[in-house]
Amino acid sequence: MLYIVGIGSGARDCMTAAAEKALMQSDFIIGYKTYTALMKPFFPQKSFLESGMRQETERVRLSLQYGQTQTVSLICSGDPELYGMAALAYEYLEEYPGTELEVVPGVTAAFSGGALLGAPLTHDTVIISLSDLLTPMEKIVHRLRCAADGDFVIVLYNPSSKTRKDYLRNACDIILKYRSPETVCGYVRNIGREGESYQICSLAELRNVQADMFTTVYIGNSETKKIGEKMVTPRGYPHA
Amino acid sequence: MLYIVGIGSGARDCMTAAAEKALMQSDFIIGYKTYTALMKPFFPQKSFLESGMRQETERVRLSLQYGQTQTVSLICSGDPELYGMAALAYEYLEEYPGTELEVVPGVTAAFSGGALLGAPLTHDTVIISLSDLLTPMEKIVHRLRCAADGDFVIVLYNPSSKTRKDYLRNACDIILKYRSPETVCGYVRNIGREGESYQICSLAELRNVQADMFTTVYIGNSETKKIGEKMVTPRGYPHA
Repeated sequence: MLYIVGIGSGARDCMTAAAEKALMQSDFIIGYKTYTALMKPFFPQKSFLESGMRQETERVRLSLQYGQTQTVSLICSGDPELYGMAALAYEYLEEYPGTELEVVPGVTAAFSGGALLGAPLTHDTVIISLSDLLTPMEKIVHRLRCAADGDFVIVLYNPSSKTRKDYLRNACDIILKYRSPETVCGYVRNIGREGESYQICSLAELRNVQADMFTTVYIGNSETKKIGEKMVTPRGYPHA
Repeated sequence: MLYIVGIGSGARDCMTAAAEKALMQSDFIIGYKTYTALMKPFFPQKSFLESGMRQETERVRLSLQYGQTQTVSLICSGDPELYGMAALAYEYLEEYPGTELEVVPGVTAAFSGGALLGAPLTHDTVIISLSDLLTPMEKIVHRLRCAADGDFVIVLYNPSSKTRKDYLRNACDIILKYRSPETVCGYVRNIGREGESYQICSLAELRNVQADMFTTVYIGNSETKKIGEKMVTPRGYPHA
Protein backbone atom coordinates (compact mmCIF):
# COMPACT_ATOMS: atom_id res chain seq x y z
CA MET A 1 0.00 0.00 0.00
CA LEU A 2 1.43 3.37 -1.02
CA TYR A 3 0.06 6.64 0.29
CA ILE A 4 1.23 9.75 -1.50
CA VAL A 5 0.77 12.29 1.23
CA GLY A 6 0.58 16.07 1.15
CA ILE A 7 2.14 17.32 4.38
CA GLY A 8 1.16 20.96 3.80
CA SER A 9 3.66 23.63 4.77
CA GLY A 10 5.55 21.43 7.21
CA ALA A 11 3.93 22.80 10.36
CA ARG A 12 2.22 19.88 12.07
CA ASP A 13 -1.00 21.84 12.56
CA CYS A 14 -1.25 22.30 8.80
CA MET A 15 -1.52 18.54 8.16
CA THR A 16 -4.89 16.91 7.74
CA ALA A 17 -5.98 14.07 10.01
CA ALA A 18 -5.88 11.75 6.97
CA ALA A 19 -2.23 12.65 6.31
CA GLU A 20 -1.34 12.06 9.96
CA LYS A 21 -3.09 8.67 9.89
CA ALA A 22 -1.34 7.59 6.67
CA LEU A 23 2.07 8.36 8.19
CA MET A 24 1.19 6.61 11.45
CA GLN A 25 0.12 3.46 9.58
CA SER A 26 3.25 3.35 7.43
CA ASP A 27 6.23 1.03 7.93
CA PHE A 28 8.42 3.60 6.14
CA ILE A 29 8.14 7.28 5.28
CA ILE A 30 9.95 8.20 2.07
CA GLY A 31 10.73 11.69 0.80
CA TYR A 32 13.09 14.43 -0.26
CA LYS A 33 15.44 15.11 2.65
CA THR A 34 14.10 18.62 3.38
CA TYR A 35 10.64 17.18 3.97
CA THR A 36 11.69 14.08 5.89
CA ALA A 37 13.67 16.43 8.19
CA LEU A 38 10.45 18.36 8.88
CA MET A 39 8.50 15.20 9.73
CA LYS A 40 11.07 13.33 11.84
CA PRO A 41 10.47 15.30 15.05
CA PHE A 42 6.70 14.65 14.76
CA PHE A 43 7.04 10.90 14.15
CA PRO A 44 10.15 9.88 16.13
CA GLN A 45 9.11 6.22 16.21
CA LYS A 46 9.00 5.91 12.42
CA SER A 47 11.63 4.83 9.90
CA PHE A 48 12.50 7.37 7.22
CA LEU A 49 14.10 6.91 3.83
CA GLU A 50 15.38 10.11 2.33
CA SER A 51 16.72 11.03 -1.08
CA GLY A 52 18.19 14.11 -2.75
CA MET A 53 16.80 16.63 -5.21
CA ARG A 54 16.18 15.65 -8.85
CA GLN A 55 15.87 12.01 -7.78
CA GLU A 56 12.10 12.11 -8.21
CA THR A 57 11.86 9.14 -10.55
CA GLU A 58 13.99 6.88 -8.34
CA ARG A 59 12.07 7.96 -5.25
CA VAL A 60 8.71 7.18 -6.85
CA ARG A 61 9.89 3.80 -8.17
CA LEU A 62 11.30 2.86 -4.76
CA SER A 63 8.02 3.83 -3.10
CA LEU A 64 5.98 1.77 -5.58
CA GLN A 65 8.30 -1.18 -5.02
CA TYR A 66 8.04 -1.04 -1.21
CA GLY A 67 4.30 -0.61 -1.61
CA GLN A 68 4.09 -4.11 -3.07
CA THR A 69 4.87 -5.76 0.27
CA GLN A 70 4.62 -3.04 2.92
CA THR A 71 2.60 0.04 3.84
CA VAL A 72 4.61 3.13 2.94
CA SER A 73 4.05 6.87 2.58
CA LEU A 74 5.78 9.07 0.03
CA ILE A 75 5.58 12.63 1.37
CA CYS A 76 5.33 15.80 -0.72
CA SER A 77 5.25 19.37 0.56
CA GLY A 78 1.90 21.10 0.15
CA ASP A 79 -0.38 18.94 -1.97
CA PRO A 80 0.93 15.76 -3.64
CA GLU A 81 -0.67 16.59 -6.98
CA LEU A 82 0.51 20.15 -7.58
CA TYR A 83 4.13 19.97 -8.80
CA GLY A 84 4.28 16.79 -6.69
CA MET A 85 4.81 13.08 -7.16
CA ALA A 86 1.26 11.70 -7.50
CA ALA A 87 1.13 11.79 -11.32
CA LEU A 88 4.51 10.12 -11.70
CA ALA A 89 3.38 7.32 -9.39
CA TYR A 90 0.29 6.71 -11.52
CA GLU A 91 2.47 6.67 -14.64
CA TYR A 92 4.56 3.80 -13.24
CA LEU A 93 1.90 2.02 -11.19
CA GLU A 94 1.16 -0.84 -13.57
CA GLU A 95 4.81 -1.92 -13.47
CA TYR A 96 4.38 -2.71 -9.75
CA PRO A 97 1.59 -5.28 -9.48
CA GLY A 98 0.08 -5.50 -6.03
CA THR A 99 0.74 -1.89 -5.08
CA GLU A 100 -2.39 0.03 -4.18
CA LEU A 101 -2.14 3.81 -4.46
CA GLU A 102 -3.98 6.49 -2.52
CA VAL A 103 -3.40 10.23 -2.85
CA VAL A 104 -3.92 12.11 0.44
CA PRO A 105 -4.46 15.79 -0.40
CA GLY A 106 -2.81 18.60 1.54
CA VAL A 107 -2.93 22.39 1.81
CA THR A 108 -0.71 23.72 -0.97
CA ALA A 109 1.50 26.78 -0.40
CA ALA A 110 -0.86 29.07 -2.34
CA PHE A 111 -3.45 28.71 0.41
CA SER A 112 -1.25 28.45 3.50
CA GLY A 113 0.68 31.53 2.35
CA GLY A 114 -2.49 33.32 1.28
CA ALA A 115 -3.92 33.00 4.80
CA LEU A 116 -0.83 34.78 6.16
CA LEU A 117 -1.09 37.61 3.64
CA GLY A 118 -4.82 38.11 4.28
CA ALA A 119 -7.25 36.81 1.66
CA PRO A 120 -5.66 37.30 -1.78
CA LEU A 121 -7.19 34.15 -3.32
CA THR A 122 -10.86 34.94 -2.94
CA HIS A 123 -11.57 34.95 -6.64
CA ASP A 124 -10.55 33.07 -9.82
CA THR A 125 -6.89 32.13 -9.43
CA VAL A 126 -4.02 30.81 -11.55
CA ILE A 127 -1.04 28.90 -10.17
CA ILE A 128 2.11 28.90 -12.33
CA SER A 129 5.57 27.50 -11.64
CA LEU A 130 8.41 29.61 -13.02
CA SER A 131 10.78 26.64 -13.05
CA ASP A 132 11.82 25.76 -16.59
CA LEU A 133 13.55 22.52 -15.60
CA LEU A 134 10.58 20.50 -16.88
CA THR A 135 8.57 23.08 -18.83
CA PRO A 136 9.78 25.06 -21.87
CA MET A 137 10.19 28.78 -21.10
CA GLU A 138 7.99 29.75 -24.09
CA LYS A 139 5.12 27.83 -22.51
CA ILE A 140 5.63 29.59 -19.16
CA VAL A 141 5.73 33.00 -20.87
CA HIS A 142 2.54 32.26 -22.80
CA ARG A 143 0.79 31.17 -19.61
CA LEU A 144 1.89 34.33 -17.79
CA ARG A 145 0.41 36.42 -20.63
CA CYS A 146 -2.87 34.49 -20.58
CA ALA A 147 -3.09 34.73 -16.78
CA ALA A 148 -2.40 38.47 -16.82
CA ASP A 149 -4.86 39.07 -19.68
CA GLY A 150 -7.57 37.13 -17.81
CA ASP A 151 -7.25 39.37 -14.73
CA PHE A 152 -6.74 36.30 -12.55
CA VAL A 153 -5.06 36.45 -9.18
CA ILE A 154 -1.69 34.86 -9.99
CA VAL A 155 0.35 32.70 -7.62
CA LEU A 156 3.93 31.95 -8.65
CA TYR A 157 5.73 28.86 -7.35
CA ASN A 158 9.51 28.43 -7.71
CA PRO A 159 9.88 32.14 -8.57
CA SER A 160 13.68 32.07 -8.52
CA SER A 161 16.70 29.99 -7.67
CA LYS A 162 20.45 30.45 -7.66
CA THR A 163 20.60 29.76 -11.38
CA ARG A 164 17.39 31.64 -12.24
CA LYS A 165 17.88 34.96 -10.47
CA ASP A 166 15.99 37.13 -12.98
CA TYR A 167 12.93 34.91 -13.55
CA LEU A 168 10.63 36.78 -11.15
CA ARG A 169 11.66 40.13 -12.65
CA ASN A 170 10.97 38.83 -16.17
CA ALA A 171 7.57 37.49 -15.09
CA CYS A 172 6.66 40.86 -13.55
CA ASP A 173 7.66 42.64 -16.77
CA ILE A 174 5.29 40.41 -18.77
CA ILE A 175 2.44 41.00 -16.32
CA LEU A 176 3.14 44.78 -16.26
CA LYS A 177 2.05 44.91 -19.92
CA TYR A 178 -1.46 44.02 -18.73
CA ARG A 179 -1.65 45.38 -15.18
CA SER A 180 -0.92 48.60 -13.36
CA PRO A 181 2.44 48.95 -11.56
CA GLU A 182 0.30 49.77 -8.50
CA THR A 183 -1.31 46.29 -8.51
CA VAL A 184 -1.25 44.93 -4.95
CA CYS A 185 1.17 42.00 -4.63
CA GLY A 186 2.68 39.97 -1.83
CA TYR A 187 5.19 37.27 -1.11
CA VAL A 188 5.70 34.77 1.69
CA ARG A 189 8.96 33.12 2.66
CA ASN A 190 9.33 29.79 4.48
CA ILE A 191 5.60 29.22 5.01
CA GLY A 192 4.97 27.33 8.25
CA ARG A 193 8.71 26.97 8.92
CA GLU A 194 11.49 28.73 10.76
CA GLY A 195 12.03 32.17 9.27
CA GLU A 196 8.42 32.55 8.09
CA SER A 197 7.77 36.11 6.91
CA TYR A 198 5.54 37.93 4.50
CA GLN A 199 5.50 41.26 2.74
CA ILE A 200 2.95 43.25 0.73
CA CYS A 201 4.18 45.47 -2.10
CA SER A 202 3.26 46.85 -5.50
CA LEU A 203 3.86 45.02 -8.78
CA ALA A 204 6.54 47.62 -9.58
CA GLU A 205 8.28 46.82 -6.29
CA LEU A 206 7.90 43.07 -6.75
CA ARG A 207 10.14 43.35 -9.85
CA ASN A 208 13.06 44.06 -7.52
CA VAL A 209 12.42 41.40 -4.90
CA GLN A 210 15.04 38.68 -4.63
CA ALA A 211 13.00 35.51 -4.15
CA ASP A 212 14.29 31.99 -3.58
CA MET A 213 12.79 28.53 -4.00
CA PHE A 214 11.07 28.78 -0.60
CA THR A 215 9.21 31.95 -1.62
CA THR A 216 5.62 31.98 -2.90
CA VAL A 217 4.55 35.09 -4.82
CA TYR A 218 1.03 36.59 -5.17
CA ILE A 219 -0.04 39.10 -7.81
CA GLY A 220 -3.47 40.59 -7.19
CA ASN A 221 -6.18 41.08 -9.80
CA SER A 222 -7.43 44.56 -10.75
CA GLU A 223 -9.65 44.68 -7.65
CA THR A 224 -7.18 43.42 -5.04
CA LYS A 225 -6.50 45.99 -2.34
CA LYS A 226 -4.46 46.54 0.77
CA ILE A 227 -6.57 46.74 3.93
CA GLY A 228 -4.43 47.59 6.94
CA GLU A 229 -1.44 45.28 6.57
CA LYS A 230 -3.34 42.63 4.62
CA MET A 231 -3.75 41.76 0.90
CA VAL A 232 -7.44 41.28 0.13
CA THR A 233 -9.22 40.36 -3.11
CA PRO A 234 -12.94 41.15 -2.82
CA ARG A 235 -15.48 38.81 -4.38
CA GLY A 236 -18.10 41.44 -5.07
CA TYR A 237 -20.70 40.97 -2.37
CA PRO A 238 -23.13 43.89 -2.21
CA HIS A 239 -22.10 45.84 0.89
CA ALA A 240 -24.57 46.25 3.71
CA MET B 1 -11.17 36.40 18.50
CA LEU B 2 -12.56 35.26 15.16
CA TYR B 3 -11.19 32.25 13.29
CA ILE B 4 -12.29 31.91 9.68
CA VAL B 5 -11.86 28.20 9.22
CA GLY B 6 -11.64 26.07 6.11
CA ILE B 7 -13.24 22.74 6.95
CA GLY B 8 -12.22 21.06 3.69
CA SER B 9 -14.71 18.74 2.03
CA GLY B 10 -16.67 18.08 5.21
CA ALA B 11 -15.09 14.68 5.98
CA ARG B 12 -13.45 14.99 9.37
CA ASP B 13 -10.21 13.42 8.12
CA CYS B 14 -9.87 16.19 5.56
CA MET B 15 -9.65 18.91 8.25
CA THR B 16 -6.28 20.16 9.41
CA ALA B 17 -5.27 19.97 13.05
CA ALA B 18 -5.32 23.79 13.15
CA ALA B 19 -8.95 23.83 11.96
CA GLU B 20 -9.92 21.23 14.54
CA LYS B 21 -8.21 23.26 17.30
CA ALA B 22 -9.91 26.51 16.27
CA LEU B 23 -13.34 24.86 16.45
CA MET B 24 -12.54 23.23 19.81
CA GLN B 25 -11.46 26.59 21.27
CA SER B 26 -14.56 28.44 20.07
CA ASP B 27 -17.55 29.39 22.17
CA PHE B 28 -19.70 29.36 19.00
CA ILE B 29 -19.36 27.91 15.51
CA ILE B 30 -21.09 29.99 12.86
CA GLY B 31 -21.82 28.98 9.26
CA TYR B 32 -24.12 28.27 6.37
CA LYS B 33 -26.53 25.55 7.48
CA THR B 34 -25.17 22.88 5.09
CA TYR B 35 -21.71 23.22 6.68
CA THR B 36 -22.84 23.48 10.29
CA ALA B 37 -24.85 20.27 9.68
CA LEU B 38 -21.62 18.55 8.57
CA MET B 39 -19.71 19.68 11.67
CA LYS B 40 -22.37 19.09 14.38
CA PRO B 41 -21.79 15.31 14.66
CA PHE B 42 -18.02 15.91 15.10
CA PHE B 43 -18.39 18.60 17.78
CA PRO B 44 -21.55 17.61 19.71
CA GLN B 45 -20.56 19.66 22.75
CA LYS B 46 -20.36 22.93 20.79
CA SER B 47 -22.97 25.62 20.13
CA PHE B 48 -23.75 26.32 16.49
CA LEU B 49 -25.29 29.36 14.85
CA GLU B 50 -26.52 28.72 11.34
CA SER B 51 -27.79 30.96 8.61
CA GLY B 52 -29.18 30.53 5.10
CA MET B 53 -27.76 31.05 1.63
CA ARG B 54 -27.05 34.55 0.30
CA GLN B 55 -26.79 35.83 3.88
CA GLU B 56 -23.01 36.07 3.63
CA THR B 57 -22.76 39.70 4.68
CA GLU B 58 -24.96 39.23 7.75
CA ARG B 59 -23.06 36.08 8.72
CA VAL B 60 -19.70 37.81 8.50
CA ARG B 61 -20.89 40.86 10.44
CA LEU B 62 -22.38 38.66 13.16
CA SER B 63 -19.10 36.72 13.40
CA LEU B 64 -17.05 39.91 13.69
CA GLN B 65 -19.42 41.21 16.36
CA TYR B 66 -19.24 38.03 18.46
CA GLY B 67 -15.47 38.06 17.97
CA GLN B 68 -15.28 41.31 19.96
CA THR B 69 -16.14 39.56 23.22
CA GLN B 70 -15.90 35.81 22.57
CA THR B 71 -13.87 33.26 20.65
CA VAL B 72 -15.84 32.21 17.58
CA SER B 73 -15.22 30.30 14.36
CA LEU B 74 -16.87 31.10 11.05
CA ILE B 75 -16.66 27.94 8.94
CA CYS B 76 -16.33 27.78 5.15
CA SER B 77 -16.25 24.66 3.00
CA GLY B 78 -12.87 23.95 1.42
CA ASP B 79 -10.57 26.91 2.00
CA PRO B 80 -11.87 30.14 3.58
CA GLU B 81 -10.21 32.33 0.97
CA LEU B 82 -11.33 30.78 -2.29
CA TYR B 83 -14.93 31.91 -2.92
CA GLY B 84 -15.13 32.03 0.89
CA MET B 85 -15.72 34.59 3.61
CA ALA B 86 -12.17 35.64 4.61
CA ALA B 87 -11.98 38.66 2.30
CA LEU B 88 -15.37 39.98 3.36
CA ALA B 89 -14.32 39.74 7.01
CA TYR B 90 -11.18 41.81 6.32
CA GLU B 91 -13.33 44.37 4.49
CA TYR B 92 -15.47 44.94 7.60
CA LEU B 93 -12.88 44.29 10.28
CA GLU B 94 -12.12 47.89 11.23
CA GLU B 95 -15.80 48.46 12.07
CA TYR B 96 -15.44 45.92 14.91
CA PRO B 97 -12.68 47.18 17.21
CA GLY B 98 -11.23 44.49 19.43
CA THR B 99 -11.87 41.62 17.04
CA GLU B 100 -8.73 39.72 16.07
CA LEU B 101 -8.93 37.75 12.85
CA GLU B 102 -7.10 34.59 11.86
CA VAL B 103 -7.63 32.68 8.61
CA VAL B 104 -7.16 28.91 9.01
CA PRO B 105 -6.57 27.42 5.56
CA GLY B 106 -8.21 24.23 4.36
CA VAL B 107 -8.07 21.80 1.45
CA THR B 108 -10.21 23.30 -1.30
CA ALA B 109 -12.41 21.08 -3.51
CA ALA B 110 -9.99 21.28 -6.44
CA PHE B 111 -7.45 19.24 -4.50
CA SER B 112 -9.71 16.90 -2.52
CA GLY B 113 -11.60 16.07 -5.73
CA GLY B 114 -8.38 15.84 -7.75
CA ALA B 115 -7.03 13.17 -5.42
CA LEU B 116 -10.13 11.06 -6.11
CA LEU B 117 -9.80 11.44 -9.89
CA GLY B 118 -6.08 10.59 -9.84
CA ALA B 119 -3.61 13.45 -10.26
CA PRO B 120 -5.11 15.96 -12.70
CA LEU B 121 -3.60 19.04 -11.01
CA THR B 122 0.08 18.25 -11.36
CA HIS B 123 0.86 21.25 -13.51
CA ASP B 124 -0.12 24.92 -13.85
CA THR B 125 -3.78 25.20 -12.94
CA VAL B 126 -6.63 27.71 -13.16
CA ILE B 127 -9.65 27.75 -10.87
CA ILE B 128 -12.75 29.54 -12.19
CA SER B 129 -16.24 29.83 -10.71
CA LEU B 130 -19.04 29.76 -13.30
CA SER B 131 -21.44 31.53 -10.94
CA ASP B 132 -22.44 34.92 -12.31
CA LEU B 133 -24.22 36.04 -9.15
CA LEU B 134 -21.24 38.23 -8.18
CA THR B 135 -19.16 38.28 -11.39
CA PRO B 136 -20.30 39.60 -14.79
CA MET B 137 -20.69 36.80 -17.37
CA GLU B 138 -18.41 38.64 -19.86
CA LYS B 139 -15.58 38.44 -17.33
CA ILE B 140 -16.15 34.70 -16.80
CA VAL B 141 -16.19 34.11 -20.57
CA HIS B 142 -12.96 36.08 -21.03
CA ARG B 143 -11.29 34.11 -18.25
CA LEU B 144 -12.39 30.80 -19.78
CA ARG B 145 -10.86 31.87 -23.10
CA CYS B 146 -7.57 32.91 -21.46
CA ALA B 147 -7.42 29.70 -19.42
CA ALA B 148 -8.08 27.55 -22.49
CA ASP B 149 -5.57 29.49 -24.59
CA GLY B 150 -2.90 29.07 -21.89
CA ASP B 151 -3.27 25.26 -21.91
CA PHE B 152 -3.84 25.30 -18.15
CA VAL B 153 -5.58 22.49 -16.35
CA ILE B 154 -8.94 24.12 -15.58
CA VAL B 155 -11.06 23.47 -12.48
CA LEU B 156 -14.63 24.79 -12.55
CA TYR B 157 -16.47 25.56 -9.31
CA ASN B 158 -20.24 26.14 -9.25
CA PRO B 159 -20.57 24.69 -12.76
CA SER B 160 -24.38 24.72 -12.76
CA SER B 161 -27.42 25.28 -10.63
CA LYS B 162 -31.17 25.05 -11.08
CA THR B 163 -31.28 28.47 -12.70
CA ARG B 164 -28.03 28.04 -14.68
CA LYS B 165 -28.54 24.67 -16.33
CA ASP B 166 -26.56 25.41 -19.51
CA TYR B 167 -23.49 27.13 -17.98
CA LEU B 168 -21.23 24.08 -18.06
CA ARG B 169 -22.20 23.34 -21.68
CA ASN B 170 -21.46 26.95 -22.66
CA ALA B 171 -18.08 26.83 -20.89
CA CYS B 172 -17.18 23.59 -22.71
CA ASP B 173 -18.11 25.18 -26.05
CA ILE B 174 -15.71 28.08 -25.35
CA ILE B 175 -12.90 25.72 -24.36
CA LEU B 176 -13.58 23.47 -27.40
CA LYS B 177 -12.43 26.36 -29.62
CA TYR B 178 -8.91 25.86 -28.13
CA ARG B 179 -8.80 22.18 -27.16
CA SER B 180 -9.54 18.83 -28.73
CA PRO B 181 -12.94 17.22 -28.01
CA GLU B 182 -10.86 14.22 -26.85
CA THR B 183 -9.28 16.24 -24.00
CA VAL B 184 -9.41 14.14 -20.83
CA CYS B 185 -11.85 15.63 -18.30
CA GLY B 186 -13.46 14.55 -15.07
CA TYR B 187 -15.99 15.57 -12.49
CA VAL B 188 -16.58 14.77 -8.85
CA ARG B 189 -19.88 14.98 -7.00
CA ASN B 190 -20.31 15.45 -3.23
CA ILE B 191 -16.60 15.31 -2.40
CA GLY B 192 -16.05 13.77 1.06
CA ARG B 193 -19.81 13.47 1.67
CA GLU B 194 -22.63 10.98 1.25
CA GLY B 195 -23.08 10.19 -2.43
CA GLU B 196 -19.46 10.90 -3.35
CA SER B 197 -18.74 9.79 -6.92
CA TYR B 198 -16.44 10.65 -9.77
CA GLN B 199 -16.35 10.12 -13.50
CA ILE B 200 -13.74 10.57 -16.22
CA CYS B 201 -14.89 11.56 -19.70
CA SER B 202 -13.88 13.53 -22.80
CA LEU B 203 -14.45 17.26 -23.23
CA ALA B 204 -17.08 16.43 -25.87
CA GLU B 205 -18.89 14.23 -23.33
CA LEU B 206 -18.54 16.80 -20.53
CA ARG B 207 -20.73 19.18 -22.62
CA ASN B 208 -23.67 16.91 -21.90
CA VAL B 209 -23.09 16.32 -18.19
CA GLN B 210 -25.76 17.71 -15.89
CA ALA B 211 -23.75 19.15 -12.99
CA ASP B 212 -25.09 20.76 -9.84
CA MET B 213 -23.65 23.11 -7.23
CA PHE B 214 -21.97 20.18 -5.43
CA THR B 215 -20.06 19.14 -8.57
CA THR B 216 -16.44 20.12 -9.27
CA VAL B 217 -15.29 19.86 -12.88
CA TYR B 218 -11.76 19.22 -14.23
CA ILE B 219 -10.60 19.89 -17.80
CA GLY B 220 -7.18 18.48 -18.58
CA ASN B 221 -4.41 20.27 -20.45
CA SER B 222 -3.12 19.00 -23.80
CA GLU B 223 -0.96 16.39 -22.04
CA THR B 224 -3.49 15.03 -19.53
CA LYS B 225 -4.20 11.35 -20.08
CA LYS B 226 -6.31 8.53 -18.73
CA ILE B 227 -4.27 5.82 -17.00
CA GLY B 228 -6.46 2.90 -15.98
CA GLU B 229 -9.46 4.59 -14.39
CA LYS B 230 -7.53 7.70 -13.33
CA MET B 231 -7.06 11.21 -14.79
CA VAL B 232 -3.36 12.09 -14.77
CA THR B 233 -1.51 15.23 -15.89
CA PRO B 234 2.21 14.50 -16.30
CA ARG B 235 4.75 17.09 -15.27
CA GLY B 236 7.43 16.09 -17.74
CA TYR B 237 9.97 14.15 -15.71
CA PRO B 238 12.40 12.28 -17.95
CA HIS B 239 11.33 8.64 -17.75
CA ALA B 240 13.72 6.07 -16.36
